[in-house]
Amino acid sequence: MDTAEGLSVEERIAALGLALPEPGVVPPGVTLPFSWVRVRGDRAYASGHGPLNRDGTMAPPFGKVPSEVSLEQAQAAAKSATLALIASLHRALGGLERVTAWLTLTGCVNADPSYPQTTLVFNPASELIIDLFGEDRGRHARTALGYAALPFNLPVIVAAEVEISD
Amino acid sequence: MDTAEGLSVEERIAALGLALPEPGVVPPGVTLPFSWVRVRGDRAYASGHGPLNRDGTMAPPFGKVPSEVSLEQAQAAAKSATLALIASLHRALGGLERVTAWLTLTGCVNADPSYPQTTLVFNPASELIIDLFGEDRGRHARTALGYAALPFNLPVIVAAEVEISD
Amino acid sequence: MDTAEGLSVEERIAALGLALPEPGVVPPGVTLPFSWVRVRGDRAYASGHGPLNRDGTMAPPFGKVPSEVSLEQAQAAAKSATLALIASLHRALGGLERVTAWLTLTGCVNADPSYPQTTLVFNPASELIIDLFGEDRGRHARTALGYAALPFNLPVIVAAEVEISD
Repeated sequence: MDTAEGLSVEERIAALGLALPEPGVVPPGVTLPFSWVRVRGDRAYASGHGPLNRDGTMAPPFGKVPSEVSLEQAQAAAKSATLALIASLHRALGGLERVTAWLTLTGCVNADPSYPQTTLVFNPASELIIDLFGEDRGRHARTALGYAALPFNLPVIVAAEVEISD
Repeated sequence: MDTAEGLSVEERIAALGLALPEPGVVPPGVTLPFSWVRVRGDRAYASGHGPLNRDGTMAPPFGKVPSEVSLEQAQAAAKSATLALIASLHRALGGLERVTAWLTLTGCVNADPSYPQTTLVFNPASELIIDLFGEDRGRHARTALGYAALPFNLPVIVAAEVEISD
Repeated sequence: MDTAEGLSVEERIAALGLALPEPGVVPPGVTLPFSWVRVRGDRAYASGHGPLNRDGTMAPPFGKVPSEVSLEQAQAAAKSATLALIASLHRALGGLERVTAWLTLTGCVNADPSYPQTTLVFNPASELIIDLFGEDRGRHARTALGYAALPFNLPVIVAAEVEISD
């Protein structure tokens, strides 16, 4: 299955100068008794993912948007977190061609009270998915809301549900 | 498929003196690179919707519940946002008879810290769905929680997953 | 269908010294116009559940984590809320053997701004599910995030989606 440009998703990632990060590394003593991706039938459910460096360590900056992390930094973090989620799908599914349709994207912003621009924070994430998977496969329903607190004080977290082929 | 009263959902909306709003209009310069409703197989996933005027512009008041927006105003906003979501389902599905079962409703309140009545804010929204679709089709699982920030400082946002017929 | 230890889920609950609480009781005058569990086809969707005493009344303490409710108290509340959710599944499905796979767990913490340990709050909840249902059935995707406000000022709320047999 190809994107509009005739490239596989993996080729498109490389063509954009991006790379899928290594599995997420958590601080010493922290366990994660859940699955990054739960695969079942024609669905894959992705847990909340934060921004990662390529080696899987958590990527700074940390804190509230926009008082501690700027809109531009938060947008970059949302893209990075989405790449981390895509990397988890890749590992769980053995490749991204099995993703036949994105269904939902849940964008979570570590927001200052009443910050009105959570939509803008996650637009680059939605655009990245459509760039990589094409309009038909990549389009999705979305919420992008502001939270009081996110794990490890990360600026953003992203979760998703996708349809997959058996 | 009829509600208990023998009216279609569209007729029931009119009988209640309500109307489905036009598609949501966003401020100049804002793009929304996602779908209001993602339709796939026997599911439709609705993105987070805010309260709309009938012409599709965002409906005031804006701000925190209850310090800036009263409980009663927030309840009216939750009903309005749910109507906007139903209008998006109508457009995406070509009519509401294809909605065979509501599954989940996610109610999001732009809440002051520790505000304990987010349940009350979304009760009129749940009641509206059951009024319009009947108990069997309309009943749903729900969360109604308080957020630090919502898009455009709206007082409420609502998202949903419904089962549809092909 | 048995857990690794050859016990049914109900037997495993008893073996751990736990018990499923009675249905949730809400304060006088509050109605809940939604379903604790929406069952449809091969899915059950569980609404947001809070911690309960065995008689179904809401279990203290109430308030923000960690300033009013300690991490240890919040962890106990997350386990209690998960038991309440499992009790609702039991009632809706007529037994827990019909739960063939946990899919998603949504953990909601009534968090002080920037509290970084929402992950830790819900780890005992995820571990309980895997203890009771076994690794294959119990494993799930998860988000565990901090909210500005939860219903009735409860310290935690948990929701879930599970796969069921017909």
